[in-house]
Amino acid sequence: MNSRERFLKACRCEPVDRPPIWVMRQAGRHLPEYREFRKKHTFHEVVKAPELALEVTMQPIRRYKMDAAIIFSDILVIPEAMGQQYGFPEGGGIEMDFAVRTQADVDRLSVDGIESRLSYMSESLRLVKKELNGERALIGFSGSPWTLATYMVEGKSSKTYTHAKKMFYEDRVLFDRLMRKITQAVVRYVRLQIAAGVDAIQLFDSWGGVLAPDAFTQASAFWMKRVVDSVAGQVPVIIFSKDMSHLGDILATTGANVLGVNWNRRLSTVKNSLPSGIAVQGNLDPTVLNTNPEVVEREALRILKDMRGLPGHIFNLGHGIQPDASPENVAKLVDTVTNFK
Amino acid sequence: MNSRERFLKACRCEPVDRPPIWVMRQAGRHLPEYREFRKKHTFHEVVKAPELALEVTMQPIRRYKMDAAIIFSDILVIPEAMGQQYGFPEGGGIEMDFAVRTQADVDRLSVDGIESRLSYMSESLRLVKKELNGERALIGFSGSPWTLATYMVEGKSSKTYTHAKKMFYEDRVLFDRLMRKITQAVVRYVRLQIAAGVDAIQLFDSWGGVLAPDAFTQASAFWMKRVVDSVAGQVPVIIFSKDMSHLGDILATTGANVLGVNWNRRLSTVKNSLPSGIAVQGNLDPTVLNTNPEVVEREALRILKDMRGLPGHIFNLGHGIQPDASPENVAKLVDTVTNFK
Repeated sequence: MNSRERFLKACRCEPVDRPPIWVMRQAGRHLPEYREFRKKHTFHEVVKAPELALEVTMQPIRRYKMDAAIIFSDILVIPEAMGQQYGFPEGGGIEMDFAVRTQADVDRLSVDGIESRLSYMSESLRLVKKELNGERALIGFSGSPWTLATYMVEGKSSKTYTHAKKMFYEDRVLFDRLMRKITQAVVRYVRLQIAAGVDAIQLFDSWGGVLAPDAFTQASAFWMKRVVDSVAGQVPVIIFSKDMSHLGDILATTGANVLGVNWNRRLSTVKNSLPSGIAVQGNLDPTVLNTNPEVVEREALRILKDMRGLPGHIFNLGHGIQPDASPENVAKLVDTVTNFK
Repeated sequence: MNSRERFLKACRCEPVDRPPIWVMRQAGRHLPEYREFRKKHTFHEVVKAPELALEVTMQPIRRYKMDAAIIFSDILVIPEAMGQQYGFPEGGGIEMDFAVRTQADVDRLSVDGIESRLSYMSESLRLVKKELNGERALIGFSGSPWTLATYMVEGKSSKTYTHAKKMFYEDRVLFDRLMRKITQAVVRYVRLQIAAGVDAIQLFDSWGGVLAPDAFTQASAFWMKRVVDSVAGQVPVIIFSKDMSHLGDILATTGANVLGVNWNRRLSTVKNSLPSGIAVQGNLDPTVLNTNPEVVEREALRILKDMRGLPGHIFNLGHGIQPDASPENVAKLVDTVTNFK
């Protein structure tokens, strides 16, 4: 069983020799070789130049025995391709070149021909797939419609998502028009990735967790279901609705094959609360990778033992790895999981 | 049944005519009269001058029909009284004058005589109690030991709590020594407030939710239980462990009478998952108060109807009110709850 087979079996809740592992944001700032590479190329350059994206995607694969590679990209390429540019201002965070607040703003967004504006993604995926040679899984991804909407409506990073929530609560007609448009774009983007050969798609519903359950159902889960339906049966879909694993009944309605789980619940409790065909991915506290190898091994084993005998577990962190995590600790984590019996 | 009686009955899960209501951070920046008042007095001045704290505590009580007043203060008065000053730097957030990282740092913290350094709190509470005249409940509060530790160990606001978690995971001896000391201070502070006449104590475990369940049990719940034990039976204790309502079994072990619940679960689900004697407080998304009165009424009714017939509900937000929430919406919220039959 090679890594790719192990990963795909785990997505389907089939028996595996040990849980497959990858790490959210494994390609990125915690790696010295990434920081070195970024001295020569901007973030946007790396995302859009297939040869550069290939290099960065492969960096963690060369260094660690990860079972899956995730394409180096950014969730905000969708609003960008729809006509809403973005950047990283000096003070930190994200800034969009306008905020979507009115019907006229929604009208400025375009889905037509989006594939050509995102064609660099197809090319990047083809290069990585070739390099992985069928041995490791290749994960494509997109922001969830709701999570993309938060950036597009706020016009920048936010802590409270007030404008996006206000639109949902106060003007459902406008909100739904925006969401339909974003969802169309996401569906096309995901299909493009499948055509380029990804083994699975992860939807980052990073800000699903800021919604009350009824609002989550209508503002996020409903639209994710449309995305999942549009690719049904082609590749497994992983939904990472951070902080929402307690809403397994709602998440199950999306048709997702795998649910990402943060670290504030015991993973076996989450798994046992779900319909039997749904796998889980998680759920180590990323901060553990900022401690030392001894703690890393102990905390990883806690999860591995907790999940022993439960099929459908992809080992991962409960959120992205922190930029100041040590590669030594990541190596220890991967060793612990790959040697687990 | 006056407001105070209604509040205390709800804390004990006894029948009431309708749920009592108060709003986290009701005394604060969303009120024009508070913003006006703060032009003349700094935050620290208001906290430490009983006549000023009285005025600010009473502002929302005069404006709205709240069932309870919460004393205007700050959780960081504890580290301050232990010898660790704090301030609010220009760029936002909080900054402590040193970070607790070693045994020598822990030794710098003092619990002896802490009551005299916090005596302004006794005086503030006595003034407010007199003004409330037994008609409305008076809530005292403290940060939870873990939440205080995050500020003390990080030395400032944090998004990841890396240093506090590192100490917990890597040096349990040092961590436990610090926690014992903080817990002693919290116990003394809470007793001082009870002696001054508070009707209930709320522990703000604002950052309990950043811990994995086993870590939460050891780093936060264990120490909150000590605080609850130390006041057992004297006044109800409300524990607000943001994002942790799914850990009802762990939270119940603390002995808390009431659990604060954020908005990402249906409140009846939380209530029904708890032992029958534990009440709940929550759980409206604070952002609803940034919309309009129609939405406020609809979303408040959703919670009220969901909880109908379940004794032991104190209506509140799932987190503090936002500074840009409108007083008109708060008034509508209070009307909706107080008129609910």
